[in-house]
Amino acid sequence: MDFTHSPRCQETLDRLNAFMDEHVYPAEQAILQDLAQRNPSGDWHNWTVSPAIEALKQKARDAGLWNLFLPDAELGQGLSVVDYAPLAEQTGRVIFAPEIFNCNAPDTGNMEVLYHFGNEAQKRTWLTPLLAGEIRSVFCMTEPQVASSDATNMEATITEDGDELVLNGRKWWTTGLGHPNAKVAIFMGLSNPEAPKHQQHSMVLVPLDSEGVTIERMLTASGEYDAPYGHGEVTFDQVRVPRQNLLWDLGKGFAIAQGRLGPGRIHHCMRAIGMAERALELAVERGLSRVAFGKPLLKLGGNGERIAQARLMIDQARLLTLNAAWKIDTLGVKQAMTEISAIKVVVPNMLQQVADMAIQIHGGAGVCHDFPLATFAAAARMLRLADGPDEVHLAMVARLEIAKHSQGGAR
Amino acid sequence: MDFTHSPRCQETLDRLNAFMDEHVYPAEQAILQDLAQRNPSGDWHNWTVSPAIEALKQKARDAGLWNLFLPDAELGQGLSVVDYAPLAEQTGRVIFAPEIFNCNAPDTGNMEVLYHFGNEAQKRTWLTPLLAGEIRSVFCMTEPQVASSDATNMEATITEDGDELVLNGRKWWTTGLGHPNAKVAIFMGLSNPEAPKHQQHSMVLVPLDSEGVTIERMLTASGEYDAPYGHGEVTFDQVRVPRQNLLWDLGKGFAIAQGRLGPGRIHHCMRAIGMAERALELAVERGLSRVAFGKPLLKLGGNGERIAQARLMIDQARLLTLNAAWKIDTLGVKQAMTEISAIKVVVPNMLQQVADMAIQIHGGAGVCHDFPLATFAAAARMLRLADGPDEVHLAMVARLEIAKHSQGGAR
Amino acid sequence: MDFTHSPRCQETLDRLNAFMDEHVYPAEQAILQDLAQRNPSGDWHNWTVSPAIEALKQKARDAGLWNLFLPDAELGQGLSVVDYAPLAEQTGRVIFAPEIFNCNAPDTGNMEVLYHFGNEAQKRTWLTPLLAGEIRSVFCMTEPQVASSDATNMEATITEDGDELVLNGRKWWTTGLGHPNAKVAIFMGLSNPEAPKHQQHSMVLVPLDSEGVTIERMLTASGEYDAPYGHGEVTFDQVRVPRQNLLWDLGKGFAIAQGRLGPGRIHHCMRAIGMAERALELAVERGLSRVAFGKPLLKLGGNGERIAQARLMIDQARLLTLNAAWKIDTLGVKQAMTEISAIKVVVPNMLQQVADMAIQIHGGAGVCHDFPLATFAAAARMLRLADGPDEVHLAMVARLEIAKHSQGGAR
Amino acid sequence: MDFTHSPRCQETLDRLNAFMDEHVYPAEQAILQDLAQRNPSGDWHNWTVSPAIEALKQKARDAGLWNLFLPDAELGQGLSVVDYAPLAEQTGRVIFAPEIFNCNAPDTGNMEVLYHFGNEAQKRTWLTPLLAGEIRSVFCMTEPQVASSDATNMEATITEDGDELVLNGRKWWTTGLGHPNAKVAIFMGLSNPEAPKHQQHSMVLVPLDSEGVTIERMLTASGEYDAPYGHGEVTFDQVRVPRQNLLWDLGKGFAIAQGRLGPGRIHHCMRAIGMAERALELAVERGLSRVAFGKPLLKLGGNGERIAQARLMIDQARLLTLNAAWKIDTLGVKQAMTEISAIKVVVPNMLQQVADMAIQIHGGAGVCHDFPLATFAAAARMLRLADGPDEVHLAMVARLEIAKHSQGGAR
Repeated sequence: MDFTHSPRCQETLDRLNAFMDEHVYPAEQAILQDLAQRNPSGDWHNWTVSPAIEALKQKARDAGLWNLFLPDAELGQGLSVVDYAPLAEQTGRVIFAPEIFNCNAPDTGNMEVLYHFGNEAQKRTWLTPLLAGEIRSVFCMTEPQVASSDATNMEATITEDGDELVLNGRKWWTTGLGHPNAKVAIFMGLSNPEAPKHQQHSMVLVPLDSEGVTIERMLTASGEYDAPYGHGEVTFDQVRVPRQNLLWDLGKGFAIAQGRLGPGRIHHCMRAIGMAERALELAVERGLSRVAFGKPLLKLGGNGERIAQARLMIDQARLLTLNAAWKIDTLGVKQAMTEISAIKVVVPNMLQQVADMAIQIHGGAGVCHDFPLATFAAAARMLRLADGPDEVHLAMVARLEIAKHSQGGAR
Repeated sequence: MDFTHSPRCQETLDRLNAFMDEHVYPAEQAILQDLAQRNPSGDWHNWTVSPAIEALKQKARDAGLWNLFLPDAELGQGLSVVDYAPLAEQTGRVIFAPEIFNCNAPDTGNMEVLYHFGNEAQKRTWLTPLLAGEIRSVFCMTEPQVASSDATNMEATITEDGDELVLNGRKWWTTGLGHPNAKVAIFMGLSNPEAPKHQQHSMVLVPLDSEGVTIERMLTASGEYDAPYGHGEVTFDQVRVPRQNLLWDLGKGFAIAQGRLGPGRIHHCMRAIGMAERALELAVERGLSRVAFGKPLLKLGGNGERIAQARLMIDQARLLTLNAAWKIDTLGVKQAMTEISAIKVVVPNMLQQVADMAIQIHGGAGVCHDFPLATFAAAARMLRLADGPDEVHLAMVARLEIAKHSQGGAR
Repeated sequence: MDFTHSPRCQETLDRLNAFMDEHVYPAEQAILQDLAQRNPSGDWHNWTVSPAIEALKQKARDAGLWNLFLPDAELGQGLSVVDYAPLAEQTGRVIFAPEIFNCNAPDTGNMEVLYHFGNEAQKRTWLTPLLAGEIRSVFCMTEPQVASSDATNMEATITEDGDELVLNGRKWWTTGLGHPNAKVAIFMGLSNPEAPKHQQHSMVLVPLDSEGVTIERMLTASGEYDAPYGHGEVTFDQVRVPRQNLLWDLGKGFAIAQGRLGPGRIHHCMRAIGMAERALELAVERGLSRVAFGKPLLKLGGNGERIAQARLMIDQARLLTLNAAWKIDTLGVKQAMTEISAIKVVVPNMLQQVADMAIQIHGGAGVCHDFPLATFAAAARMLRLADGPDEVHLAMVARLEIAKHSQGGAR
Repeated sequence: MDFTHSPRCQETLDRLNAFMDEHVYPAEQAILQDLAQRNPSGDWHNWTVSPAIEALKQKARDAGLWNLFLPDAELGQGLSVVDYAPLAEQTGRVIFAPEIFNCNAPDTGNMEVLYHFGNEAQKRTWLTPLLAGEIRSVFCMTEPQVASSDATNMEATITEDGDELVLNGRKWWTTGLGHPNAKVAIFMGLSNPEAPKHQQHSMVLVPLDSEGVTIERMLTASGEYDAPYGHGEVTFDQVRVPRQNLLWDLGKGFAIAQGRLGPGRIHHCMRAIGMAERALELAVERGLSRVAFGKPLLKLGGNGERIAQARLMIDQARLLTLNAAWKIDTLGVKQAMTEISAIKVVVPNMLQQVADMAIQIHGGAGVCHDFPLATFAAAARMLRLADGPDEVHLAMVARLEIAKHSQGGAR
C-alpha cells in the first residue's frame, strides 16, 4: 500500500495550488459579486459572462493547467483518474474555479462522451471548441413528469424520419442552460420502446438554436439561480436534427451513460470534498476569531468536537473516493460499482453535514453570501439528488453486497 | 391530564381552517409567483406589496381572524398562549399566511413589547397602526462585527444628549426591513456600559426615515431574499430620536427582551411545526403518486420508515411545544425556561430533517420553488440561528439540569 | 389542555415516591448483589428468590401500593392508564421495583388477559394467586425457527383431542421462565390453519409442571441472564391440557394479543422513561463529581450538550407516551394505533441513547454492575425487539399516515 | 497511490485465511460453548483454559502464523504495521482467534513494551515466554477512584526504597487478570510527583504472585465476564519488587505509553473492523434466510439500505485505519497523531452501529450467545472507553486541526 501521490500528480498539484493562491483566491469575492450584479434575477436572457473568468481561463491555459480531467495525453494532460482526483478537490474549493481550468460539469462529462463515443465530425464540430473553452454544453436527461430516479421512466422521444431524427419532450434540471455560451445539448430519449429495458434509449447532439427548442424558465436550486449557468426547463417540440447527430447508435443511451458515470462521480465527489475542506477551514477560522461568553467559539460546548467530527468525515470520504478512483484505473468501472455508488452517497451527505456545521459556527454570516457556505450547502443538497438520489445508490450497494452471498460466501 | 383543545381554541381553529381552505390554499401558488415576479432581485428599493395579500388581510379582519396572537381580549382575541398555539401551527403551513391574520414575526413580538412596555404615546403612534396591519416594524439586534450568540457582545450605542438619544452602530439580519410598509424599528444598544452585564442595554423606537438611518443591503438567507420582507443590513450614524422614544427605561433592554421571548418562541415553533406537517403531507402525496422501478416511491426501500420517523418527530415536537405553552400560561415564563429553550432546539432541527426528507422524496422538484419545501428548509436553517443558536439553548438546558442536582436531588 | 396529574394520580405518586425513598433506593445495591450471588450463572435449576424482595412486596401491599396497574377498583387501584403511567415511570427507576408493587412484566399483561378474557375457573386458579403475588407467569409466543416480527409465522400447534388440547412446539425468549415461582404459561399456537390469517391462532393456559414441558436453557440477553427471572427456551412435546384451559375461544389468539398490547406498551415505555431519567441523573452526578484536565467532566467538550439532548429526548418521549395513554383511556386502543406504535419505537431508542451517553460519562464504571446503566442499555436493546421490532412499528405508523391520504386529505 | 497489499502481506493473508477456514471457523461454536461451560460465573479462581485453544495455538505456531504483530523479523514475522493490519482484521472475526496466533491484547502491547523498552533480563524472563504463548500478561493503568480519561489523574504510587520499588494503589479494568496463565503485570504509577506533568509516572513489571497483590473481583463488561480472561479489580498493598523490574527509567511512564499506543490502536481497530465485517455477513445471511410478511427480511423496509450503510461505514473505517498504519510506517507515530486518534473514534463507533444493526436483523437470536453479535456490541462499547474515551480523542483531533491555523494557514 502506498498513499503518496504520483510525481506527475504531485507536480501538477503544486502548480495548481500556486495558481489558485496567486490568481483565484484573491479574486474570489470580487468575481462572485460581479456575477451577482451582472445576473441579479432569473431573467436568463440577460445573463452575461464574467470577463474576469474569461481572463483567468486564458491564464490557466497558458499555464498548462487546462483540461486536466481528460486522460488523453494530447488533448488533456494524460492524468489517470486517481491522479486527477486531488486536483479536482482543489478546484472545488472555489465555486467558479473548475471552469477556469475547463474542468467544470457538465462539460467534462459531455467531452468524455464525445471523446469516447463521438464520430470524427461530431468531435470536430463540438469537442474541439469545448476543449478550447469557447462554447459550453448541457445534458438533457431529467424530466419533470416522471420519477427520474428510475431512468427507464424517461418519456421524451427520438423518432427516425428518413435522414433525420425528430425529438420531442420536456426536460428540466438541465444545468448550464442559461449560459450565453451554451451551444449544444446531449439529449437522451426513448428511441426503441420495443427493445429490452436498457436498450430503449439513445443520445443525440442538438444545437440549442434548433427550431423547436424552447427554454421555458430557469429553476432555483435551494433558492439560487446559479447564474449565469442556471438550471433550465426546456421543451423539445418536433426538433429535427440530422441522423449523424446520433451518438454511437440507436439504443446505446444507457451504455453511454454508464461509461460517462464512473470518472464523473469521482470528479463531482472530489470537488465536494474540496468544498468540505474549505468549509472546515472557514469554521476553524471563524471559531477562533469570534468570541462569546469570554471565549473563542471553538472553546465553547461541543464546537471543538464538531470540528473533529468534520475532519473524521472528510478524511474517510476522501480515502473512499481515491480508492474508487484507483479501482476505476486499475480494474475498470464495472469492478468498482460498489465504490462508485458508495461515494455518491457518502460524499454529498458528508458535505451537507460539514457545510451545515460551518454555517452554524458562522451564525447569520453563514447563511448569506458573504461566505461560500450556503452555496456549498445548496450544492450538497443538489448532489444528493443529481445523478441518482442516495436511495438508488444505497439500493445498488445493497444488491451487490447481497450478491456476494448468493454467489456462495462473502469473504 | 387532558389533551383536548379548549372550546374557544377549537372554535377559532375551525374558523381559521375554513378560511385557509377557502381563501389561502387556493391562492397560494398565484401569490407566491406574483411576489417573485414583483420582486425578482435584491434591489429592495423596488420591492412592492402584493395587492392579493392586502385583500386577504381585509378578509381575515372581517372574519374576526385578526391579531389572534394577542392575549388581550379587546385588542386581540383574548386567547391564551396554549390556545393560540394550534392556530399558529395552521398559519405556518403557508409561508405568507401569518401576515394575513396580522400574526407575523417580527411584528407580533414588537407589538407585544409595545403592549407590555410602551407608554401611551408610543402605543398611539406605533401599536395602533401595527394592530391595524397598516404599517410594519423591524427589530434591530444582531450585529455583523460580533458573535451575537452572546447578546452582551452588542456594540451599537445609545447615548443621552439632552432630550434626545443618539444612536450609532451597524445591525444586520433585520427581518422585514425591505418591506415598503416598514416604518419603525426597535433598536437595541449599549447605553449603560458601567452597569451590571444585563442592565447595560436599552431599547429605543426609531422611525426608519430618521436622518442617519441607511439601509446598506438586503442579505440572502440560504439563497433567498424573502422579498418583499427581506433581511437587511442597516447603519445608524448619529441618529437622533426624542428621549420619549425610549422603551421602559435605560438599562431595561434585556428585561424587555426576556419578556418578549417566551410566547414568541411558541409562535415560531408552532409555525415551524405547521411547515413540517405540510412537508410531510407533500411527501406522502408525492411518494404515492410517483412511480419508480414499478412501485410508488413510498413502497421503495426506507421511504416508508422515513415517513413514519417524520410523524414521530413532529408529534413529539408539538407536544413539547404545547406543554411549554401551557407552562407559560400557568406558571409563567421563568418557570418554563427549560421548556422554552428545549423547543427552540427541537423544533427547528425537526423541521430541517422533515423538510430535507420531503425534498428528497420530491427529487429536483423539491429544491425549486414549485413546492414550498426549499423555503421550509431555509426557514429551518435560519431558525436554528435566529434568537439564539442551538448551542446557546442546549447550554441553558444543561445548566438548569445540572442546577437540579446542586440544589440537592433531582427527582 | 391540562398537563397536571389528576389528584388521585398525584396522591398515589407521592405515596409511591415516599415508599421508594424509604424502602427501595436504600436497599437497591444490597438486593442486586444478593441476587447476583444467589444466582451466579445460567444454571436456572438453582436460582432462588430474594427474601428481601419478598419482604418489600409485603410492605408495598400493606401500604396499598399493590396491583397499581389494574384499572379495576376492587382488584387493583382503579387507576386509568394515564393515571398509572407516572407510577410506572417511578418503578422503572430500580430494576426490581416493579415486582415489589406486583406491577412487573409479563405478569401484568398476563393478569390483564385473565381479567378480560379468562373464565371464572381460570381466574380463580391463576388470577387470584397472581394478584396476590404468590406465583409468577410467563408468555410463550416467540419461536426460534421463524421470524417472529411477523407473528403469523408462528408454527407451534394446538390440536383438539376430545376434551383436551395437545400442544407442540418450541418457544424462546419466554421471560421469567427461570423463576422458582413461575407456575403457568400462556401458550400461543396455531390451532385453525384454515382460518383467515389473524384467526388461526389460540392462547392456552399451561401449568409449567405439565408433562412434556421441558425448559431447555436460559438465554443471555446482552450478556445477562437476568436471574432469577431469566429468558427461557422451552419445548412443548405432546403437552395435554384440558380444553377449559383455552382462553376465550379457538382462533382468538390475535384478538387477545391486540387487547393485551395497548396498556402494556404504556407500562413498558413509562418504565423505560424512568430508567432514562435515572440514567440522566446518574450522568449528571458523575459528571459533576469526576474531574479531568482540571474540570468536572460536564464542563468538558460536548458533555453538557449531551446532558441537554437527553433532557430533550426524555421529555418528548414522556409526553408522547402520556398522550398515547390518554388516547387509550378516552378513545380506545383502536384510535391510538399510531401513538401506540410510535412510543414503541421512540422510547426504547431514546433509552438506548440516554443509557449509552450515561455509560460514556461513567467510563469503565458504566459498563459494569456498579451502576444500573449497562442493565438499562441491555433493557433498551431488548425492548427494540420485544413485542415487535422497531421496523414493524415504523411500518405500522407509515401505513396509517399514508391511509390518511388515500382517504382523501390529511389535515 | 496503490491500494494493493504487498506480496508478503498477501501471501501471509492467504495462509491465515486458509488456517481460519480449516481450523477456526469450524471449531468456533464448540469452543465458545466449552469456554462458557468451563467458566460459568465470575468466580475466577475456578476459571480454566480451553485445551482446544491450546491445541490451535500449537497448530498456528507450526504453520508459521505466530507473533504476526511483531515487526521484528526474527522474533515475529517482520511485517510492517500496514502489512499486519489486514491479518489483524481477519483474526478479529472470531473472538478467540487473536490468541491462537499469539496476537491478542493486552499481550501484544506488553510484548512491544518489553521489546522496545525492556532490558535483557526483563526480556529473558518475560518476553521469551510471552512470545512462546506460555504465559499471559496484564496492564494495570485505569483506577476506580479517578477519571482515567485524564491519565495524569493516576494516584497509585511507586516509591523507591533502597534496591526495591514499593507499589501501592487500586487498579481496575485490568484485562486478562482472571486467566490461569496470567503471570505478570505492567503496573503504572506516580513515582515523581514533583516532575513536569508527563514525567511523573513510571512503569514497573510485577509478578502477579507478589505479596500484597490481591485480585478483588472480576467485573462484568456489558454483562459479560469474558472468562477465562476477565477484567479485574486488583489492589497493590506495599508490593515490593526489585528495582531492575523498572521499565526504562523513572518518569518514563508516559513516554512508554505513547510508543505503545500507535501500532496497538491499529491492531484494535483492524480487529474491530473484522468484527464489523463478520456482523455484516451474518446480517446478510440472516436477512436472506428469514421470511416475514412473505419476503426475506432484506427486502423489507429500510433493511437493504442499512446493509448498504454498513458497507459504506466499514469501507471508510478500514481505509482510514490502513492510512493511519501506513503513516506510522512511513512518517512515524508523531506525524500520525490525528489519524491515530481519528480511528480510535471512528472504528468503535462504526462497530457499535453495525453490530447493533446486525442484532436487529437477527431479532432475539442477536442478543443471545447463539451468534457473536452481542459480544461484538459489548466489545465496541468497551472500545469506546478503553485507551481514552471518544471525547479525549475528538479533543486531540480538534486541537491538531486548530493548530494548523494558528501556525498560519491550513491548506
